[in-house]
Amino acid sequence: MTSSKRAHVVGLGLIGSSVARALQRAGWTVTGDDLDESVVTEALRVGVITDVPFPPDADLGVVATPAGAVVEVARRLLDSLSPHAVVTDVAGVKETIAHDIADPRFVPGHPMAGSELRGLAGCRADMFEGATWVLTPTPSTDPRAYATVHHVIREMGAHVVALDAGDHDRLVALASHVPHLLAGALMNEAAVAAREDAVLLQLAAGGFRDMTRIAAGDPLMWPDVLLENRRAVTSTLDDVIARLESLRRVVAEQDRVGLEGTLRSASEARRRLPGRAVSAEELAYLRVEIADRPGALATITTTASDRSVNIFDIEIAHHVEGRSGTLLLSVDETVADGFVESLRSLGFLVVRDK
Amino acid sequence: MTSSKRAHVVGLGLIGSSVARALQRAGWTVTGDDLDESVVTEALRVGVITDVPFPPDADLGVVATPAGAVVEVARRLLDSLSPHAVVTDVAGVKETIAHDIADPRFVPGHPMAGSELRGLAGCRADMFEGATWVLTPTPSTDPRAYATVHHVIREMGAHVVALDAGDHDRLVALASHVPHLLAGALMNEAAVAAREDAVLLQLAAGGFRDMTRIAAGDPLMWPDVLLENRRAVTSTLDDVIARLESLRRVVAEQDRVGLEGTLRSASEARRRLPGRAVSAEELAYLRVEIADRPGALATITTTASDRSVNIFDIEIAHHVEGRSGTLLLSVDETVADGFVESLRSLGFLVVRDK
Repeated sequence: MTSSKRAHVVGLGLIGSSVARALQRAGWTVTGDDLDESVVTEALRVGVITDVPFPPDADLGVVATPAGAVVEVARRLLDSLSPHAVVTDVAGVKETIAHDIADPRFVPGHPMAGSELRGLAGCRADMFEGATWVLTPTPSTDPRAYATVHHVIREMGAHVVALDAGDHDRLVALASHVPHLLAGALMNEAAVAAREDAVLLQLAAGGFRDMTRIAAGDPLMWPDVLLENRRAVTSTLDDVIARLESLRRVVAEQDRVGLEGTLRSASEARRRLPGRAVSAEELAYLRVEIADRPGALATITTTASDRSVNIFDIEIAHHVEGRSGTLLLSVDETVADGFVESLRSLGFLVVRDK
Repeated sequence: MTSSKRAHVVGLGLIGSSVARALQRAGWTVTGDDLDESVVTEALRVGVITDVPFPPDADLGVVATPAGAVVEVARRLLDSLSPHAVVTDVAGVKETIAHDIADPRFVPGHPMAGSELRGLAGCRADMFEGATWVLTPTPSTDPRAYATVHHVIREMGAHVVALDAGDHDRLVALASHVPHLLAGALMNEAAVAAREDAVLLQLAAGGFRDMTRIAAGDPLMWPDVLLENRRAVTSTLDDVIARLESLRRVVAEQDRVGLEGTLRSASEARRRLPGRAVSAEELAYLRVEIADRPGALATITTTASDRSVNIFDIEIAHHVEGRSGTLLLSVDETVADGFVESLRSLGFLVVRDK
């Protein structure tokens, strides 16, 4: 599919327009559309897209609308695009979407990147450079479609992590959605107090600024995401509130040992927080037979992510029929042995080329 | 007092050693001490202090020990230093300290600055550049002592904010202590989840990193501060927990309007968060008679802070007897009129020179 490289992006907000720019930088021709006519006009003017109507021979459709509209827009694209085209989305919540669109050509995705700016104004070609981009392949995802989307994401500079859609939703509740609610609660509490005592905001040093920064995010985008993911969000929020209540008890009872223990484990965990990119001087090349095993792709890619194995490249070597074939994977050499073992224990035939 | 400029710093951790460096940069000779012999040796080796025993003719004593030791160390310094010397401290909780040391030469203080690094290793001469430094003068604070400490802090590059000690404790609970507990709770929750699903930490993008950064802070220093300030901390934490419970309800009930309203007010408040420094191209110069009014200094300086009036410089023009005299203040010209009015309404005789 990389011969023509034509993509169509629906939804030209912050992420959609940045995807368009990142694709252009990688040599793609990008058309696009948005419900808001003025956004389309501006996107054409600044060159984020070159045209509006989608080319029927496009290779890639990207759905970058609010989460609630993804299923409908993705289905429309899948119906209109040629059989060899693939479609992905960028919504922050994945379980419903992955469940509702069981098309082999659809690969649900979620780039973990953003900006405090909104819409086209925050658009950047390098937004995904070094970022993590989650894909949530399902048993019905065609490995060729997955490999295509993986390639495109690598072209935009991001690292791909494959997750089960439900796991994704639970993990982003903790990594992103609940932190947003914490920041909002703290900022609102401070705003009320500052009305009585304006000097409060002068006392708000680096820590407070850091903790409330994400609260500045788009108040129109967040409710969608939080409500879509409400099950994971409320259950994670319950866990965090329980922790705060336990901390409150420890402080009130002047339990110095308990308090120090809690803060020490947090401090150690924070210091261990890994850097983003895994350097890959040395890659190992694996071949995995996936013929006649539906769901094999999802199993293999999420197994890699579970073991923190970064798949640098992925392709289909022999396309036989339907969705079967051989996966060619390159992974970090240092973790290759363990990964191969895991795959073999799951019954896969794995050959290590190097 | 500025002719000799000799300071003695007790407690050579992160803040104490940075105060020493900042004073040296401003031309002071700095001696110092620490309970930990190895810290003293290292401080002498790298030149953070030039000697250990405090000079009886020192002009300034800085108590930079953990909060629990401040009262004892400050009393010892006040007993040993000459009558013209002043003593300040840098503890993060002020009400007990301000209450327990009713010496006219003691000016309780709290620099709102820090680092993720601990101890001498994080020491920086510019740590207080542009930072807010709270002073909590009491009715027994000698205006000359206050003016001296104010000058010294300005020499280190910080802005002085004067607050009632109780107000300070309540405000830092919200601006600093409770955020620390939120960060700790979130980080611990994530650490537990990451043990089951290591990929979580790869999904932890900028927002999560921002929100948990302060959790990396020194687990030995924080329990002291949190327990000292436990009354304000528990009550503020209760308020924040109540906000989180209300957010949880709004999400669970899919109350989009309520959720959007809460997030919008937080977003707007965060965007309004003021920058740190107030530029002062134009200053107004005020003279305020404080003869025979005990507590006048505390009233004037905290009134300024309540009105967000930055006092750039402060001195005592005519020292008559005891603690009375005339305060010379320079403040931002644009807010001078309102400030003068406030002071007059409190019964002060105020002359505006410019």
